[in-house]
Amino acid sequence: MTKWVYSFGGGEAEGRADMKQLLGGKGANLAEMANLGIPVPAGFTISTEACAYYYKNNQAYPEGVTEQVDQALARTEEIMGGRFGDADMPLLVSVRSGAPVSMPGMMDTVLNLGLNDTTVKGLVKQTGDERFAYDSYRRFIQMYADVVLGVDNQNFEEIIEAMKEEKGVRLDVELDADDLKKLVERFKAKVKETRHEAFPEDPRDQLWGAIGAVFGSWMNDRAETYRRLHNIPVEWGTAANVQSMVFGNMGEESATGVAFTRDPSTGENRFYGEYLINAQGEDVVAGIRTPQYLGKKEREEAGSELPSLEEAMPTLYQELVEIRRKLEERYKDMQDMEFTIQRGRVWMLQTRAGKRTAKAALKIAVDMAREGLIDEHTAVNRLDPAQLDQLLHPTLDPDAPRDVLGKGLPASPGAASGRIVFSAGDAEDWVQKGEKVMLVRQETSPDDIGGMHVAQGIVTTRGGMTSHAAVVARGMGRPCVAGAGELRADVKKKTLTAGDRVLKEGDTLTIDGTSGEVIAGAVPTVQPEVSGDFAVLMAWVDRARPIKVRANADTPEDLRIADQFGAEGVGLCRTEHMFFDPERIVAMRQMILAADERGRRTALEKLLPYQRDDFEELLRIMGPRPLTVRQLDPPLHEFLPNSDAEMKKVAEAAGVDQGTVQQRANQLREANPMLGHRGCRLGITYPEIYEMQARAIFEAACNVVKKDGTAVRPEVMIPLVATHQEVAILRDKVDAVARQVFEETGTSVTYHVGTMIELPRAALRGGEIAQAAEFFSFGTNDLTQTGLGMSRDDSGPFLGAYQQQGIFAHDPFMSLDQDGVGELVQIASWRGREARPGLELGICGEHGGDPASIAFCYRSGLDYVSCSPYRVPIARLAAAQAALAGEG
Amino acid sequence: MTKWVYSFGGGEAEGRADMKQLLGGKGANLAEMANLGIPVPAGFTISTEACAYYYKNNQAYPEGVTEQVDQALARTEEIMGGRFGDADMPLLVSVRSGAPVSMPGMMDTVLNLGLNDTTVKGLVKQTGDERFAYDSYRRFIQMYADVVLGVDNQNFEEIIEAMKEEKGVRLDVELDADDLKKLVERFKAKVKETRHEAFPEDPRDQLWGAIGAVFGSWMNDRAETYRRLHNIPVEWGTAANVQSMVFGNMGEESATGVAFTRDPSTGENRFYGEYLINAQGEDVVAGIRTPQYLGKKEREEAGSELPSLEEAMPTLYQELVEIRRKLEERYKDMQDMEFTIQRGRVWMLQTRAGKRTAKAALKIAVDMAREGLIDEHTAVNRLDPAQLDQLLHPTLDPDAPRDVLGKGLPASPGAASGRIVFSAGDAEDWVQKGEKVMLVRQETSPDDIGGMHVAQGIVTTRGGMTSHAAVVARGMGRPCVAGAGELRADVKKKTLTAGDRVLKEGDTLTIDGTSGEVIAGAVPTVQPEVSGDFAVLMAWVDRARPIKVRANADTPEDLRIADQFGAEGVGLCRTEHMFFDPERIVAMRQMILAADERGRRTALEKLLPYQRDDFEELLRIMGPRPLTVRQLDPPLHEFLPNSDAEMKKVAEAAGVDQGTVQQRANQLREANPMLGHRGCRLGITYPEIYEMQARAIFEAACNVVKKDGTAVRPEVMIPLVATHQEVAILRDKVDAVARQVFEETGTSVTYHVGTMIELPRAALRGGEIAQAAEFFSFGTNDLTQTGLGMSRDDSGPFLGAYQQQGIFAHDPFMSLDQDGVGELVQIASWRGREARPGLELGICGEHGGDPASIAFCYRSGLDYVSCSPYRVPIARLAAAQAALAGEG
Repeated sequence: MTKWVYSFGGGEAEGRADMKQLLGGKGANLAEMANLGIPVPAGFTISTEACAYYYKNNQAYPEGVTEQVDQALARTEEIMGGRFGDADMPLLVSVRSGAPVSMPGMMDTVLNLGLNDTTVKGLVKQTGDERFAYDSYRRFIQMYADVVLGVDNQNFEEIIEAMKEEKGVRLDVELDADDLKKLVERFKAKVKETRHEAFPEDPRDQLWGAIGAVFGSWMNDRAETYRRLHNIPVEWGTAANVQSMVFGNMGEESATGVAFTRDPSTGENRFYGEYLINAQGEDVVAGIRTPQYLGKKEREEAGSELPSLEEAMPTLYQELVEIRRKLEERYKDMQDMEFTIQRGRVWMLQTRAGKRTAKAALKIAVDMAREGLIDEHTAVNRLDPAQLDQLLHPTLDPDAPRDVLGKGLPASPGAASGRIVFSAGDAEDWVQKGEKVMLVRQETSPDDIGGMHVAQGIVTTRGGMTSHAAVVARGMGRPCVAGAGELRADVKKKTLTAGDRVLKEGDTLTIDGTSGEVIAGAVPTVQPEVSGDFAVLMAWVDRARPIKVRANADTPEDLRIADQFGAEGVGLCRTEHMFFDPERIVAMRQMILAADERGRRTALEKLLPYQRDDFEELLRIMGPRPLTVRQLDPPLHEFLPNSDAEMKKVAEAAGVDQGTVQQRANQLREANPMLGHRGCRLGITYPEIYEMQARAIFEAACNVVKKDGTAVRPEVMIPLVATHQEVAILRDKVDAVARQVFEETGTSVTYHVGTMIELPRAALRGGEIAQAAEFFSFGTNDLTQTGLGMSRDDSGPFLGAYQQQGIFAHDPFMSLDQDGVGELVQIASWRGREARPGLELGICGEHGGDPASIAFCYRSGLDYVSCSPYRVPIARLAAAQAALAGEG
Repeated sequence: MTKWVYSFGGGEAEGRADMKQLLGGKGANLAEMANLGIPVPAGFTISTEACAYYYKNNQAYPEGVTEQVDQALARTEEIMGGRFGDADMPLLVSVRSGAPVSMPGMMDTVLNLGLNDTTVKGLVKQTGDERFAYDSYRRFIQMYADVVLGVDNQNFEEIIEAMKEEKGVRLDVELDADDLKKLVERFKAKVKETRHEAFPEDPRDQLWGAIGAVFGSWMNDRAETYRRLHNIPVEWGTAANVQSMVFGNMGEESATGVAFTRDPSTGENRFYGEYLINAQGEDVVAGIRTPQYLGKKEREEAGSELPSLEEAMPTLYQELVEIRRKLEERYKDMQDMEFTIQRGRVWMLQTRAGKRTAKAALKIAVDMAREGLIDEHTAVNRLDPAQLDQLLHPTLDPDAPRDVLGKGLPASPGAASGRIVFSAGDAEDWVQKGEKVMLVRQETSPDDIGGMHVAQGIVTTRGGMTSHAAVVARGMGRPCVAGAGELRADVKKKTLTAGDRVLKEGDTLTIDGTSGEVIAGAVPTVQPEVSGDFAVLMAWVDRARPIKVRANADTPEDLRIADQFGAEGVGLCRTEHMFFDPERIVAMRQMILAADERGRRTALEKLLPYQRDDFEELLRIMGPRPLTVRQLDPPLHEFLPNSDAEMKKVAEAAGVDQGTVQQRANQLREANPMLGHRGCRLGITYPEIYEMQARAIFEAACNVVKKDGTAVRPEVMIPLVATHQEVAILRDKVDAVARQVFEETGTSVTYHVGTMIELPRAALRGGEIAQAAEFFSFGTNDLTQTGLGMSRDDSGPFLGAYQQQGIFAHDPFMSLDQDGVGELVQIASWRGREARPGLELGICGEHGGDPASIAFCYRSGLDYVSCSPYRVPIARLAAAQAALAGEG
């Protein structure tokens, strides 16, 4: 006979902590606590296998399960000293679902199951509290009717309201026992009216009804969606946990509380929690009464007058302290516990790994490793890379008040305050005068780079997580709130409106890029800590980490941040931002407007010294670490202005009439710029541009070597390659320039020439391309756009529906589409390495900072990932975890 | 000792016709003629292997080659009865390159080699014609200096001009022998001045100089480009042919001519050619003198007074007739021959397969098969599919005068005349009044479809071979000249300007879509023939053809053309054109502007009957042949108007204010529409659209079955799929609609649901997708755009450079990129068939009508290709040839 039901309680259990697959997380942990001799209210778990059977067999329970439930119930009665359905000593139970992995959105709990018109009287006798008994009863009916019978809770709330009106009272607590009795009758009448059958009086009917509802909840829409999104097989099923009720609201010797084995906010190694005397679990959470501290020290520190548990019930407190010790020893992680004290006796209702802040996670991991509770690798695995982001940026002081104007998307983490400006130009002007500014725009364009760079933070009222503002801000490490649709930015009038509040240019604004909040006025911030525990843990991370982490960084400032965060090189240095400087953009535009190659060369000669100086500074910072410079990538029209006024300015500066500028701009306009005349196509059609850039790089490199005597390692990267011929042609030109410069300067440097692999064809032809390229850097942003045929800028209107309908588990621009785009990465890697053993492989798309994508890169044999400077530590951690997962 | 040199002449040769790889095409054919006993001036061929050796060994000739050349030269002298460098009986030779495959752009010929100050006197003695001898000499110096010594020909032309001025004459022929002697001296002085060394007097030096130049020409830029474009290995090398000179200009018993073994224009089986008495080969081509006919009959038909060769030299004519017979018997194809008659003796200088018109190719192939000279398969292989296009469209009467205004791209073949209109609306109005119109636009948009459909032809002044106008016109079979940049269309003033000529609305214009000519006035056209020889050959084609050919066709008219041209189904029926009808576009726009699903459903209900009627008509035409209907594909903004006036109209029709239309249009605007909210993404976000279309298809199918009792085979095709989930979700909806309609109508039809594979991800995930899809249709237009990351509309500015630099051998939008996009097709095919054996595979991109791409599809195991109706016969032929090539 298959065992379907597992009992626990009375200092022993049939299950164990490692039986989560069979008993669900909750059931397994209850069993484990019982085994550890920790007092848990007795009960039993009906296994996930029973649920699976139920669905495989047209919703029939397996043979023997009824008998096994009866036996387990009998055992529970024996341990707890009551009887299910008994008129004098009724045993009441809770019924809860419990899947192998936690699944929010499944069934609510049913409490107080077993109450009926007979047993309620027994409860009165047991507790001597008629009001308590009938309140429990009416709550049970309400809960059961809602969860099991599908009678909308609103029905019952309306009955309660009517009752309060009859009595002329305002609060539920003002209703007395008789009122509650009446409520019970009215509730039952409502159930009968709605369901055309009476509320079940037989506790066994109630029990099986609740078990059926738990199993049924496995198939509800929310659960299905959750499973699809998290790849949870439908075959797993959920367990059902039936557990004796204990009450923390049975008088002054009863209490209920929650506790953490360490401080979940700071990570400090102290027992931390709250409790309430004579209360139910939900009262602690609801926040109507002020909870009391567990320990005396915490109470004193907080300056609370209410006695701590340590003071009020010292013996029971010690019992909890001992339980805390046992649990940490057993689980080797910080636990989140729920307990109830019923008339002087401690009962544990739940234990699970506790949620914690990033700061706490860091401290707990490092402390536990030092305490010998866990090893280094486990400590490394204890940090969620996504959470780590919180540690790397300034955050708003959590205790400071916030005057929130509205919310947008948390586009780039960190917090900052500054005075509002509405244009990039104003931002630069104000900063020159020594002001700190917050740049507010409807959306940003490459023209705004300068202003974004000097601003403390950026707010846009349009655009998504991958809008220009968001991507650039993340790259720069500037906090950014994007698409704050509740706010209206009037750039002409220079006002920012939120509802009926209007802020003007110069007013101070604060943003929290981690939460998306936009706040009026200044809010103090807390600076991140990159030493101490952080440094200790990152050292362990680096020991476990098999692949390199570089940064995507374009400016000296970015490079310095990358350096500080441990970047081992620059994987993507974009050169286009360099052209937006006011002094340079004129020459750039002159180049674009030139009628022929000669005109372009003249303009490029003006740009050469600027680029050389830039590269010199960058190479100097990186020293012997690789600096991978991408040659000009965006279509030329991105450098032309849009407005009429700007057109005019350009025409004047370039010394042509405005009609010519307009005409050239029209000529350059593209139907699909993403797929247009950009990347190496510029290098093929206007070789002089790439030659100038190559010259700037090599002259800079030779200068550094000559002046400083330090080694440098420039890498020239050719973007948007589709064919090996493009690489061969452009590589020859780079090599020719290098030879020329080395001859002219009498110096030489080691350099590499490689390509971006960001088009499907390039991935497929990786073998040929590797013959001319010394490295591949996967540009997974564009590879995603082309592989999926999906424009990042235009996917907003359908990407939501795609995620809701489970077509994409994640936004493919945030986390790599491993099945599709990932296969292209792997094909290119295999074919490339086959043609050129030792070919260097890396990724420099946005995905280089995404933990799941980093794990994929590790599994695919890449040498490095490159991500925005602030994400470097995250990438280091994710890479280490990927390697550790590979070992396990 | 390796044999490097192969002699021919005197009725025998060391080479043969099948030694083209070693001797080049020219050398092998000269050898073959010698073997056949046909008189060829004796000579020898230095093999391609010698050239290959030359390049492998730092431009050194292989050992033994000098001796072998000497021996071959001695043999030539013996046969021809002269001596190289002899003062009395000098042997003169020509030196020509000859690669294994014909390579235009390689070295020019050097004639009269062997002349110097001594031998020229021998030539005078031999010919008794001093002027002739010195004219030959000065020509030799000029040619040799240009080709071998690199002295620009312009130098010599200037000297001649100066001489004519001195003499006060206008024509070269007015210079006498003494003048020519002076020219020789001046030419040599110029060479010495330029090269700082004397012109080589020693004939052996001249010979080796010319051989070196021939070998050198293998590596010149033009040859390199040609090789890269045609995948000719550089290792092959070129042969060098050294052949005795014979002269057709040695008096009235000498002549020179060209002949075809059949009429190259009509294909008629008669000896056809032209000759000139006392002339050189170049005189026949130059057209200064009027050439005479070979045969008497031809002369009489042409009404010429000049005697035919048959009349002038009857014996020699008969000798040529016999040579003609031998060559056709040997080569089993129509030959293009060059001959020279030197003092009453016939010499053959060249034979090769003759170029012919499509009409001639067809007739020759069918005739030769009937004559038993070749078999059916060979006949099928004799037609060039690209050339076939000429036979399927009306052509301009080649004899009619043409008043050419300008030239554009030959965007869609065929010829037509009509009265100029400048808008699609005007086109429709004029046609309603019974006029034939020619639509002239700067460029076209989907709005113009109606007008394009009623026009005789389309001219655009902007855009390329794959512009909207070009693609749509090819699909409709309308002739089109695109991007006629010399013309200016002023749509407002309704004028078409070419230089200083101005045409107005209503003036008649003729276009030749095969040549790209735009012609003022009407030109008579010749209608295509699709019966007779064409029908005979196509029957042979179909017997050899292993894969099906379907048509891309959207309208009843298109379907009927497709049917007539032998389409075996419709592989792509686009539904979007159906929405542009004035009655329907209102409902369509209403649907787009609707605020919610309900509003969309109301508008869609209006569209349903239209679509149902359309499908009914189409299904009726196709009967049991498959009709593959693509669900709505373009982004919705394509259906919204662009101009302010049109916006207003839409707003009125849709009953909303203009601001709403504008706002919605702005919302729908996309940065990269190609990668935007289109294809099945519309089906996922607005399922009601696809449901309406499915309903229209199934209701129509049931109606046809009920009313006509004929079978139909609708196929529903889901476009722009990236994931298997999209297919699964949308297929379920189609199936649900089908079940519903079958229930409602009490009828059912067999149908299939499949997908376009037009995104790289879809190709890679072909295995998963095939689980939900019953067929794959490769949309290679979009697969090329995404696979190469290259927008069809935006690639104009660089695609030219890409082809020039050899990055692309062909425009990848015209001929499939087999290495890249092709691999995606193959991956999807393999994976799809593995998951679903018998999965139907087809291609419906523009490439479906391209012979090279069709061969690829055959090799990749596709079941069918689908192309525009007019290309169906081409596709049938190309498919048959691909299969025959596969067998060989």
